[in-house]
Amino acid sequence: MASYIHRRQLTVEWGQCDPAGIVFNPRFFEMFDVSTWLLIQALLGVRQQDFPAAYDVVGAPLVDARANFLKPARFGDTVEIASRITEVRRTSFDIEHRLTVGGELAVDGGETRVWAVRDAADADRIRAIAIPAAVVERFTA
Amino acid sequence: MASYIHRRQLTVEWGQCDPAGIVFNPRFFEMFDVSTWLLIQALLGVRQQDFPAAYDVVGAPLVDARANFLKPARFGDTVEIASRITEVRRTSFDIEHRLTVGGELAVDGGETRVWAVRDAADADRIRAIAIPAAVVERFTA
Amino acid sequence: MASYIHRRQLTVEWGQCDPAGIVFNPRFFEMFDVSTWLLIQALLGVRQQDFPAAYDVVGAPLVDARANFLKPARFGDTVEIASRITEVRRTSFDIEHRLTVGGELAVDGGETRVWAVRDAADADRIRAIAIPAAVVERFTA
Amino acid sequence: MASYIHRRQLTVEWGQCDPAGIVFNPRFFEMFDVSTWLLIQALLGVRQQDFPAAYDVVGAPLVDARANFLKPARFGDTVEIASRITEVRRTSFDIEHRLTVGGELAVDGGETRVWAVRDAADADRIRAIAIPAAVVERFTA
Repeated sequence: MASYIHRRQLTVEWGQCDPAGIVFNPRFFEMFDVSTWLLIQALLGVRQQDFPAAYDVVGAPLVDARANFLKPARFGDTVEIASRITEVRRTSFDIEHRLTVGGELAVDGGETRVWAVRDAADADRIRAIAIPAAVVERFTA
Repeated sequence: MASYIHRRQLTVEWGQCDPAGIVFNPRFFEMFDVSTWLLIQALLGVRQQDFPAAYDVVGAPLVDARANFLKPARFGDTVEIASRITEVRRTSFDIEHRLTVGGELAVDGGETRVWAVRDAADADRIRAIAIPAAVVERFTA
Repeated sequence: MASYIHRRQLTVEWGQCDPAGIVFNPRFFEMFDVSTWLLIQALLGVRQQDFPAAYDVVGAPLVDARANFLKPARFGDTVEIASRITEVRRTSFDIEHRLTVGGELAVDGGETRVWAVRDAADADRIRAIAIPAAVVERFTA
Repeated sequence: MASYIHRRQLTVEWGQCDPAGIVFNPRFFEMFDVSTWLLIQALLGVRQQDFPAAYDVVGAPLVDARANFLKPARFGDTVEIASRITEVRRTSFDIEHRLTVGGELAVDGGETRVWAVRDAADADRIRAIAIPAAVVERFTA
C-alpha cells in the first residue's frame, strides 16, 4: 500500500443532492473519478489530459467500482476525500477513497483500474499490459 | 416555422430532482438536447451519431440556450416535451421545446444551433456554413 | 433468488458519454437506481414516490453499490438492463443489474438496500427494520 | 448594476465533457447555479442552506436561464466564472455569469430569480413578494 494520501475538500452542492436532501449516490463516483486523477497526478506528475500520451496508453480504464454508504452527506456539508493506492498488480491497481463528513467516515469507496492499450488487431478493443516499473515504484512508495 | 412537432414522454427520475423535490434546472437542458436530436432524426432520417458524416459537418453546435421555468416538474411526474424548429436562417436554426406537466406548460425552452465545419486554417475552431437547401426544405416543411 | 426479471432498453445519450465516447461510469449507477425502483414497482405494485407512505419507511436506502465494467457502452448504443432481486435478508436485500449491449454483458452491477425507518431518538439517523413478510414473499417468489 | 463581482476558478472535469471533448452545455448551468449562491452568500452573508430561514422564503427560484456559447471549454481547461447582479426589480433580480477560458469569454450566461414564498392558499404554489429593502441595498451597492 502506498503511503501517499491525496486529500481534498468539497462542499456538497444543491445539484448533487436528491429529494432526501442528501448526495445522490452516483455523484460520489463522479467525485472519486476526479480524486483518482488528482492522486495519479500527485504521484506521477502527469495530468489526466497528458496521461495517454505520456505512457502511450488509452488511459487507465475503470474495470470495477464499489462503495459502502455508511452515513449520508447532506447539502452544504464540507466533505473530505482521502484517496490512495492500496494495491498494485501486474496490469491493474486499486484505489481507495474514504469520504468523511466532520471526521466520520460516510462513504468507503474503491476502484480497480487497468493499464491498457488499444488492441492492434481490433481498434475497438483494449488490452491490459504490464504497468511500467517506474510507475509501480511511485504507486507503491 | 416547421409544422412537424416531435413529442416524447418522460417520467421525472429521483436523480433528476433536487432537495426541493423538483427537477434541477440543468436537467431540463439535458432533456432538450436529446429531444433536439430526436427531432432532427425524425425530420432528416439521420441519427445523431451519423449526422457529422452524413452532412460533412462537426455536428450542429449549440450557440444559445434559454428556458423559462413557469411551473415545477416534480419527482414522479410524467412530462411531455414537444419540440419543433421555429426558424431557419442561412447558417443557423432555432428549436423550441415546450415541456408540459398534466397538459400545463412548465418549461418553455429554446435553442439556437449552427451548421458548422472545422476551420481548415485552425482545427481548433469551427466555422458556420450555409445549411443545405434540402435540409432547409425539411426543416421548414 | 427471485425469478422475476425486470428488463428495459435505453439508448445511450450524448450527455451520458465522456470524451472517450463511452458512458461515463457514474451514469450506470444512475440507470441502476431507476431500474431498481421499476423492479420494486413491478414486484410490489407500489411506485417509488408512494413507497415511503405505503410501508411507513424512509425508503430503501442504498448501503452498497458495485459494478464490473466488462465492455464499454458507446454513444447511440441500445442497451438492455435486466434487474432482479438476488438475495433477501432480515433487514436488507440485494439487486443485480446486468447491462448488455448487443446481447453481450457490458456492466455487471449490484446494490444492497435496507428497509429503514427514521430513528425515534434521533431524527437525523435511520434504523434498519425487518422487511415485512408480505414483501419478502414477493421479493423471493 | 452591483459593483461586486464574485469570481471562482474551476478545472473542467472529464465527467463534465461530452464525446467532442468539450463541456456538455447543461454542466454550465450547474456551474452557474453554484456561482449564484456563492455570490448571494458574499453579498448577504447568508449561505444557501440558511437562506430560506433567514428571509422566510422558499429560496430564490429560477424563472429564467439563458446562455450564449461563444467558445468551447475543453477537458482540463481552467475556467473562471465572474458573476454579478445586473438588475434588481421589485420581486426579481438578474444575475450575469461570464465564463472565460484563458481570459477569453467562452460562455455568457444569465439567470432571473424571484423572491418567493409558499402560497398560503395553495401550498403547492409559490408567490413572488417584494425583495426586502436591505437586500436590494446589498444587491445594488
